[in-house]
Amino acid sequence: MATVTEPTGHMLIAGTPVFGAGRHVRAVNPATDAELEPPFGHGGAPEVAQACEAADAAFDAFRHTTGARRADFLETIADNIEALGDPLIARAHAESGLPVARLTGERGRTTGQLRLFAELVREGSWAGARIDPARPERTPLPRSDIRQRAVGLGPVAVFGASNFPLAFSVAGGDTASALAAGCPVVVKGHDAHPGTSELVGRAVTDAVTSCGLPPGTFSLLFGLGPELGIELVTDPRIHAVAFTGSRQAGLALMSAAAGRPRPIPVHAEMSSVNPVFLLPGALTDRAPELGAEFAASLTLGSGQFCTNPGLVLAVEGPALDRFLDAAAAAVQESTASTMLTPPIARSYDSAVSALAAQDGVSVLARGHQSGQPNGCRAALLATDAEAFLGTEELRQEVFGSCSLVVRCRDAVQLTEVADALEGQLTATVHATTSDQAEARALLRVLELRAGRVLFNGWPTGVEVGHAMVHGGPFPATSDARTTSVGTSALDRFLRPVAYQDVPAALLPSAVADGNPDGLWRRIDGELGRH
Amino acid sequence: MATVTEPTGHMLIAGTPVFGAGRHVRAVNPATDAELEPPFGHGGAPEVAQACEAADAAFDAFRHTTGARRADFLETIADNIEALGDPLIARAHAESGLPVARLTGERGRTTGQLRLFAELVREGSWAGARIDPARPERTPLPRSDIRQRAVGLGPVAVFGASNFPLAFSVAGGDTASALAAGCPVVVKGHDAHPGTSELVGRAVTDAVTSCGLPPGTFSLLFGLGPELGIELVTDPRIHAVAFTGSRQAGLALMSAAAGRPRPIPVHAEMSSVNPVFLLPGALTDRAPELGAEFAASLTLGSGQFCTNPGLVLAVEGPALDRFLDAAAAAVQESTASTMLTPPIARSYDSAVSALAAQDGVSVLARGHQSGQPNGCRAALLATDAEAFLGTEELRQEVFGSCSLVVRCRDAVQLTEVADALEGQLTATVHATTSDQAEARALLRVLELRAGRVLFNGWPTGVEVGHAMVHGGPFPATSDARTTSVGTSALDRFLRPVAYQDVPAALLPSAVADGNPDGLWRRIDGELGRH
Repeated sequence: MATVTEPTGHMLIAGTPVFGAGRHVRAVNPATDAELEPPFGHGGAPEVAQACEAADAAFDAFRHTTGARRADFLETIADNIEALGDPLIARAHAESGLPVARLTGERGRTTGQLRLFAELVREGSWAGARIDPARPERTPLPRSDIRQRAVGLGPVAVFGASNFPLAFSVAGGDTASALAAGCPVVVKGHDAHPGTSELVGRAVTDAVTSCGLPPGTFSLLFGLGPELGIELVTDPRIHAVAFTGSRQAGLALMSAAAGRPRPIPVHAEMSSVNPVFLLPGALTDRAPELGAEFAASLTLGSGQFCTNPGLVLAVEGPALDRFLDAAAAAVQESTASTMLTPPIARSYDSAVSALAAQDGVSVLARGHQSGQPNGCRAALLATDAEAFLGTEELRQEVFGSCSLVVRCRDAVQLTEVADALEGQLTATVHATTSDQAEARALLRVLELRAGRVLFNGWPTGVEVGHAMVHGGPFPATSDARTTSVGTSALDRFLRPVAYQDVPAALLPSAVADGNPDGLWRRIDGELGRH
Repeated sequence: MATVTEPTGHMLIAGTPVFGAGRHVRAVNPATDAELEPPFGHGGAPEVAQACEAADAAFDAFRHTTGARRADFLETIADNIEALGDPLIARAHAESGLPVARLTGERGRTTGQLRLFAELVREGSWAGARIDPARPERTPLPRSDIRQRAVGLGPVAVFGASNFPLAFSVAGGDTASALAAGCPVVVKGHDAHPGTSELVGRAVTDAVTSCGLPPGTFSLLFGLGPELGIELVTDPRIHAVAFTGSRQAGLALMSAAAGRPRPIPVHAEMSSVNPVFLLPGALTDRAPELGAEFAASLTLGSGQFCTNPGLVLAVEGPALDRFLDAAAAAVQESTASTMLTPPIARSYDSAVSALAAQDGVSVLARGHQSGQPNGCRAALLATDAEAFLGTEELRQEVFGSCSLVVRCRDAVQLTEVADALEGQLTATVHATTSDQAEARALLRVLELRAGRVLFNGWPTGVEVGHAMVHGGPFPATSDARTTSVGTSALDRFLRPVAYQDVPAALLPSAVADGNPDGLWRRIDGELGRH
């Protein structure tokens, strides 16, 4: 049970609250610009070293816990987060400006995610067990007994993201999946919501204690963005990195990780404009409805989603005009909602202004000011395909409720634009049966450009399940071979090990004779619970 | 059917023989130092661009071939390699100095590998299909239909290795697994065996033609090591790299790939000393036999294996002395066998001399000279744990039949040495039941340090199967999360894509309703052929 429901300003290093000796920072309520108590002391190199040393010391015992015990731990974290009750939501609301209803939903997503990984770990087949039995009779050489299972990489550095103070932060998907994989976690909390981070961090720390796990299984640090982050990523005891944030910060972490004496994998989710393709049949059938739905997706949560629809592509004509009329009207009627932090709101305003000032870009609609600080006035802009293809600046993500419509001359030009897109988290197609040939061709292009391709919907809203891919080719992420949401996220922190002729008494249970854990295993390549 | 059984000196770019305009090189028979005809013309940047452009153009059609068709292609390559008959073995023997029997076995391994991947691709479950069906009734929000399958990354650059002119070269495991994944391949052939490379390259090219695949599915280039290699790795149309070779070259490729505007994954297998732990019970029981077996593994194929046992660790005492006596006697009786190339033989000699000259290192035995050029005189050296732990130079791989024995004071020091080891491809333990407690503790350490841990055997000999891991933590490889041998090798070239609410008519067959391909799939996380 979590016992503290008000933040105290401490980092949590292997179970011990530590007030950092560095700069003191306070969270800011973006809805009022007021500073929130208490101050948080930034940590530095010594605290990174302490946390990493403790994580390293915890690794061997933690990775050898049974699946059942690790599942209990994940569920206890979920229980402890729920036990924090309204004060957690109130603090997250004050720190992020996000509505209480949204944060309540996000808390459910966070605890649901922890429980989903608990289920996965309890079941155990994530170890990917394979057995190629010995063939002593084989000629010219007998075959050895070879068994494979996955083990955790080692301590993982997790960076909290600003835009999901619960679901992509201290006990979010990265932490849940790394812990599920048997890897201790050192989190760098985001300065936008340190109080929320501390409360959740205490929920995790309490779970570590009550589950009898080594204290170094979890630590939470605060510190200056680039400095502390690089210090953490370059610590020799860290074996992998998970990050959600800006392209610039993600690239800096990738470069630091690649430059280590022993390079380590970085899973950075960085930037995506999430193109939406409106095909002619869909536009003809439903232009006004699509316009309204699009505006709703765009303005949801001030557009502060990795999957915000920042780019719309369609062939010009009366149907597109009707779509734009409806979308522009909805955007114009929208009232600015509070952004996560004052710097994010300032960045948004200047990015929209810079985009609007580009040659060939026109502003179709802006939302209302709210009269409150740090509001996000939605922005709908338009350009044509030539300008889009010729201007690098038009293809950058703007974080917030801003979208650019690219008018294409014809279907050929639409495909040309699709071909020219960088890697994306999502790509969306609106199509009816009359669009089928074009949709089929587009899908072939888009499945190479995006981690998730969706039809007749909107990209915001990332389901946590078994089939989800929240990932995609660079620069959407640093490693397209993975996902940061859904059960496959666990695989990011594993590596396979082969055991050849290891005596039965020493074999890990995942690959032991008789399948004591009841896992799905491949025997000579054949899957079965055997 | 392959039609050319003598090499002509050409590169093969998307089906077209091209004689490079760069430096002319001839293979050298290391057994005689004689140059072999014909000359091979090195290619450069234009040929890299041509091959990559063709691979890029081929990708979409090639990745959309059915599993059955891709399987036929892989099997046709295997058939074509076999159809090359004795001239292929003769050329490989002349170029590598490797015995005919070994090369005949290696050919079987190569074709067996191609056929194993054919089987895998024909079966189809490698796509990792997952379906989370829609739940329209769910509150507060309905759930979309989400399906996941893997797609190939794109064209792959493969670097042929010198030490396996067939199994880790033009149509080796990297090429087989990349093609199986639906990725076109551009091979940089190794200058140590250009004729073998061309013959095998023609076998692949002929298979591309007879199977009606796009010509860019396969190209073979020759060129200056670093220059052409970096050109290939930094070509924007290349999406992944597979390499087996030296640490220095591997690091250069990793750095080039990380420095691209769009970084790509590199699977480099680089260096490993493959520690062998002799526990007291095993030594007491079988010291002389172990010594003889060890010497046989060490001198096999001039020690030119990634998994050569280059390091032996044991507690000092009479049993270790008996082991060393037996090993030294066998090494002394061994006659130098030809190494792969004159530069490799020179490097071996100077590396052994440098190691022998280190403080605290003594030479226990050297093999005989053979009187022929480029012979590898086996070398058995010894040191103690203090020297080993204190001297970086003692922990480097020597490519060839050289091994260093580290005498430890006691079991504690043995574990200390194990803890200090870098990442390895393999780690070996010799133990009896009386060693069980120590073996168990060691296994916990070694499974974090090596891709494969084996008991009571020798690390040379890497089985091609489903459970094999030929990989391991850095610097053994650049990415411990994978293997370059065995069916899991295919996964290196895949990424997952999620399809959300994609109309049934447009869904890829791997995730289509009714499971038309009969695959293993996860539905709501449950595995089944459903």
